[in-house]
Amino acid sequence: MMQLLQLLLYCEDVKVMNDIFKKKLSTVTLGVKSFSDNLRTFSDEVVNLEWQPPCFADPKDAMLLARLFNNEKIVKANEIAVGKYLNAQPVLTKICSAREVIPDFKGRKLLHSGPPIAYENMCGPMQGAVCGAIVYEGWADDIESAQNLVRSGQVELSPCHHHHAVGPMAGVISPSMPVFVVKNTVDGNEAYSNLNEGLGKVLRFGANGDEVLSRLKFMQEKLAPVLAKALEILGPIEIKPLISQGLQMGDECHNRNSASTGQLIKILSPVLAGIDGGAEALRFIASNDHFFLNLSMAACKCMLDAASGVKYSSMVVAMARNGVNFGIRISGAGDTWFEAPSLFIKGLYFPGYGDKDANPDLGDSAITETAGIGGFAMAASPAIVKFVGGSSQDALNNSLRMREITLGRHPSFCLPALDFDGTACGIDVLKVLDRHILPIINTGIAHRQAGIGQIGAGITNAPEECFVKALRFLAADVL
Amino acid sequence: MMQLLQLLLYCEDVKVMNDIFKKKLSTVTLGVKSFSDNLRTFSDEVVNLEWQPPCFADPKDAMLLARLFNNEKIVKANEIAVGKYLNAQPVLTKICSAREVIPDFKGRKLLHSGPPIAYENMCGPMQGAVCGAIVYEGWADDIESAQNLVRSGQVELSPCHHHHAVGPMAGVISPSMPVFVVKNTVDGNEAYSNLNEGLGKVLRFGANGDEVLSRLKFMQEKLAPVLAKALEILGPIEIKPLISQGLQMGDECHNRNSASTGQLIKILSPVLAGIDGGAEALRFIASNDHFFLNLSMAACKCMLDAASGVKYSSMVVAMARNGVNFGIRISGAGDTWFEAPSLFIKGLYFPGYGDKDANPDLGDSAITETAGIGGFAMAASPAIVKFVGGSSQDALNNSLRMREITLGRHPSFCLPALDFDGTACGIDVLKVLDRHILPIINTGIAHRQAGIGQIGAGITNAPEECFVKALRFLAADVL
Repeated sequence: MMQLLQLLLYCEDVKVMNDIFKKKLSTVTLGVKSFSDNLRTFSDEVVNLEWQPPCFADPKDAMLLARLFNNEKIVKANEIAVGKYLNAQPVLTKICSAREVIPDFKGRKLLHSGPPIAYENMCGPMQGAVCGAIVYEGWADDIESAQNLVRSGQVELSPCHHHHAVGPMAGVISPSMPVFVVKNTVDGNEAYSNLNEGLGKVLRFGANGDEVLSRLKFMQEKLAPVLAKALEILGPIEIKPLISQGLQMGDECHNRNSASTGQLIKILSPVLAGIDGGAEALRFIASNDHFFLNLSMAACKCMLDAASGVKYSSMVVAMARNGVNFGIRISGAGDTWFEAPSLFIKGLYFPGYGDKDANPDLGDSAITETAGIGGFAMAASPAIVKFVGGSSQDALNNSLRMREITLGRHPSFCLPALDFDGTACGIDVLKVLDRHILPIINTGIAHRQAGIGQIGAGITNAPEECFVKALRFLAADVL
Repeated sequence: MMQLLQLLLYCEDVKVMNDIFKKKLSTVTLGVKSFSDNLRTFSDEVVNLEWQPPCFADPKDAMLLARLFNNEKIVKANEIAVGKYLNAQPVLTKICSAREVIPDFKGRKLLHSGPPIAYENMCGPMQGAVCGAIVYEGWADDIESAQNLVRSGQVELSPCHHHHAVGPMAGVISPSMPVFVVKNTVDGNEAYSNLNEGLGKVLRFGANGDEVLSRLKFMQEKLAPVLAKALEILGPIEIKPLISQGLQMGDECHNRNSASTGQLIKILSPVLAGIDGGAEALRFIASNDHFFLNLSMAACKCMLDAASGVKYSSMVVAMARNGVNFGIRISGAGDTWFEAPSLFIKGLYFPGYGDKDANPDLGDSAITETAGIGGFAMAASPAIVKFVGGSSQDALNNSLRMREITLGRHPSFCLPALDFDGTACGIDVLKVLDRHILPIINTGIAHRQAGIGQIGAGITNAPEECFVKALRFLAADVL
């Protein structure tokens, strides 16, 4: 398709064009079918190629894309990057406080989801979560003082992704919070995520009342030490097989984690039952079907970090949203973010809520789609359509469509409904722009005000502008 | 279709036939397409109806079927029976020894799967299980003495189904074994099943060595009391929602029970963790992905017993195999069994085994298919085809085909891959014979020698003869 475009762009010589029209025409039309209808009255030799202009119809970007497509440097770099991702072996090795393991996590510092953003520009849920975390850490006595503290610049704010971490929704991680430590046993890199609080009034949706903070204290003081002890007894837990089994059991490990949470409980419960406080820990985990989500996210981050930093690679290694902006990172562009405004989510609202209540797309959980699960693996999870809308055929189609924009199929993440073919993984910026297909994300909808919580779930896309910006970066680097 | 047959059977007047052939022919051919090919050379007005003779081509039975089909008494009775089945609410109320709850379970008596059978006619695995149970009960000191005891007629043998009970494979239940007590809270009827031992060398496949018997003792003395205590604390557990969730999570609750076992552990583990011996119980349950099977079976038995005993009903309320014969019971025929030799299973063998090693179809677990799950719900469980053979499309097709021979769809047992349509349930003897489609069963393959265990899994059918016999019974009763 790119070669055709190159031809057309160079066909500017009018004489050549006139000569062509004197001959008997054999025509290929590009675009909607009606383009070919007129020509068909003159000639039988008309072929219509269903086609949309690449790069969202910008000719300069399209030319860059034409020059980068199949570029040897990029192809080779992508092979390395996707290989590193596929080979990674994420293993849960430790549960401890964030400050113990997250590099450079000192003083009054908080992590948040998505690309960088200043407090005053944050969306409601993220501001609420930041203030809640400040009170939780004891840096302020109440939410108002917390607001003053952060507004006065005395709290450093930094994206989770800058610290090999991920957090769902507001994604706020503070130094005292317990985190999962997931290590890639092949390359040695670690990734981190906080522990899932459950649904309802929770910090990640910006709630910051007593109930929320005392749950966080319970998680820090009771849950995490008990889980850490169980993990010490059990030894490291491989996460890839859990995701793999989850996909056989109706989870896509982003919006649905019910079976995977059950599988995790199968592993943990015999040991937890022998530890003081184990019953309470089990009660907490068993009452939250999303408990596995944060572990799934940390594993995805761990596998994708392994793929990052391969010069010239156009593979996407992070997609993350701070509720205002959506950022992607590609393997060949180091720590650079390519950003655009976050889109809204199309889906099903819980009773009493609608479009006017919704926050734009928020959270680091799109790391799952970046890794080929979540929305990319919807075919594994027909039950998810009851939650995000559509039919089970839509779920299949979404997984099939993502094959168009990815570099490979995951041999361990198989989709039973597609006869156990691997899920599409390794999003390629160039394919996204060439095929005009945006990565799908299957996600929760947060209320735009702090503390109200989840108000629905649905489907959205990564914005096209992120990919165009990444293309321009690559062009400058490669050409 | 039946009306056409009636017409043909009465068309014996040769004159009428000759007159027909003098006119311009408008023809409907019945059967394979080639029947219509010759006629098509004479006339355009030929329609071929894909059709097989009903009742497996026996004209006398076909006439009985023609007379019973749409019979008002049967239609009304079936409405009642299927309604009772759909309304039943099976709830796990108790775990205790079989002798405490199973009616008329005194002295040296053992229950077994399938229709009645004498010891000397039993298949290898069932003989092995019977002798193992005799030693387990202390009625004999070793397997040889046990054989002598049972051969001398001093052990009464009776089908589980005669006692509202079901057991997988050999299905041997002895008085000291713990059982699940599942009660239908709508009609008050109870059903029972033993507890699943796990895979490998286990009594239900006829193994009866020390390892097997000491596991049974552990289940009796440790596991069951701990589970009983947990159940006392938790209160009754509804089984229908667990099956329903299982179907959303890749289980069909016969050959695949992985997610459902996980869901059960989610419920039990927080309480078990607070009970002495809970850790050991959890270790046992969490290491056996089939633990939920026996509970699924007891629930199915409970729902189907609610539907039994409706005079004139042609609804199948039990399908069970003793490894030699396959028996069905229908709602309108009380305790009568309609039997035929058990078929072999077509499927995938574990490495090192083949057709020559296989026992014919064995066990009460086909109660799941009778209730519309198992093979009938394969569409919910594409992962099962990795175990029983075929593609995920085959799994879908099996579920769709069963709609042809059933009285209803289950509103709670929904199949995500069929856009959440209910599973086909309430097998109708008349539809089976009319459509020439036999109920599908999705089952394990036992080695024909005692104690070797499961050697594969696959798909088989209920034999046609059972349904023909049931038809004749109904004809005698209704006409």
